[in-house]
Amino acid sequence: MKIDVLSLFPEMFQGVFQSSILHKAHEAGAFQYNFVNFRDYTDNKHNKVDDYPYGGGAGMVLKPQPIFDAVEAVQQDTASAPRVILMCPQGQPYTQKKAEELAKEDHLIFICGHYEGYDERIRTELVTDEISIGDYVLTGGELGAMVVIDSVVRLLPNVLGNDDSAVQDSFSTGLLEHPHYTRPADFRGLTVPDVLLSGNHAHIDQWRRKEALKRTFLRRRDLLEEMDLTEEEQQWIKEWQSHEENS
Amino acid sequence: MKIDVLSLFPEMFQGVFQSSILHKAHEAGAFQYNFVNFRDYTDNKHNKVDDYPYGGGAGMVLKPQPIFDAVEAVQQDTASAPRVILMCPQGQPYTQKKAEELAKEDHLIFICGHYEGYDERIRTELVTDEISIGDYVLTGGELGAMVVIDSVVRLLPNVLGNDDSAVQDSFSTGLLEHPHYTRPADFRGLTVPDVLLSGNHAHIDQWRRKEALKRTFLRRRDLLEEMDLTEEEQQWIKEWQSHEENS
Repeated sequence: MKIDVLSLFPEMFQGVFQSSILHKAHEAGAFQYNFVNFRDYTDNKHNKVDDYPYGGGAGMVLKPQPIFDAVEAVQQDTASAPRVILMCPQGQPYTQKKAEELAKEDHLIFICGHYEGYDERIRTELVTDEISIGDYVLTGGELGAMVVIDSVVRLLPNVLGNDDSAVQDSFSTGLLEHPHYTRPADFRGLTVPDVLLSGNHAHIDQWRRKEALKRTFLRRRDLLEEMDLTEEEQQWIKEWQSHEENS
Repeated sequence: MKIDVLSLFPEMFQGVFQSSILHKAHEAGAFQYNFVNFRDYTDNKHNKVDDYPYGGGAGMVLKPQPIFDAVEAVQQDTASAPRVILMCPQGQPYTQKKAEELAKEDHLIFICGHYEGYDERIRTELVTDEISIGDYVLTGGELGAMVVIDSVVRLLPNVLGNDDSAVQDSFSTGLLEHPHYTRPADFRGLTVPDVLLSGNHAHIDQWRRKEALKRTFLRRRDLLEEMDLTEEEQQWIKEWQSHEENS
């Protein structure tokens, strides 16, 4: 996979790209990346990339020309039709399903604004995807791009070892994860549930499923709406609901 | 504000903390930060911070001892009761409202796992908040902590200038932002809406409100559920709905 990132702050990416998974995946050839400072593409004699908004109001707006030209320069180097992804609060909320979809692509181009808004023509004519990583305001699109890139690259073939991949499986089962415990069995008087020490794997599996379901019920009931639950699981939920109503 | 970050990969934070807003806010004294590699606190003779899960299964689990000791060491230096925030997919979905709440605190402590799960006793006994930045899987909690820190620090007094703060106001009005345009008025045949060039500010304000509402209706209908809309706005929505049904 090839990843191009358009940003006025390419130095922001250094620590993340040079550590952990992204560093290892890059070393192993699983993906290549390239930063493009789109200020290098402006035809403005003062090197400006933004300007005042038509119609007035506070804040600056990124001009279309530098971004169009930078994206087109990057597209020239590629045979495939890249996804052009705009990081913005107005975008589609990012999900694990979207990460899996992007992980199948050959080439991703990320556009990161910083403070400024985007000229609307960038949205309507240039980008294929607008993505928001969540309902909060960040200083720029750079952290969002890092989040998307981390979540996509870890899904590429041969990037994660088996040990790494297995634990963080929230969202792939549709439920939040069950509780984990490790040694010591007694830490400052806080003990591990007996079932986990029992060696009875059928009981352990059932306990974990029930705890995962309970945690999801208590914290993220919205995730249960699209789940196919067994009759037993539906019964558990009824019990928790009636317990809630009576307390 | 004081921020402590517990992580096995403190170098991941460098680019983000040394650029843009976080750099400026730190230079201006708006916040101090400190990284704690909790491996330094393990009492394990092989320096291990994780161990196999009780009950079996793939993946490793972060031991309680190094994290408890590291958090307690950091808490010793502080007069206030810090918020202890665990970054994890099982956490409360992060929102702008939560950012505003955290921005009022004096001291935040972030716990970032990497690959591993957390021993449940960390959740139940040590942390005050579990936060998820979205429904996708990341390699570790570091990027999530950076996202939360960026969104909180930009809300601290005197961090953002007026120009910076005004544009990115999605979520503060409850609607997605209206489209922005800047010069040129004609870019490759793509023109700016006439109303924005009209100089009639009442018309411009109405156009922007309607476009913000329409974008929210088309992309994020969920955000409209809790909005108080005027009669005129409700009428617009009815028109868009009937247009949808007929197309």
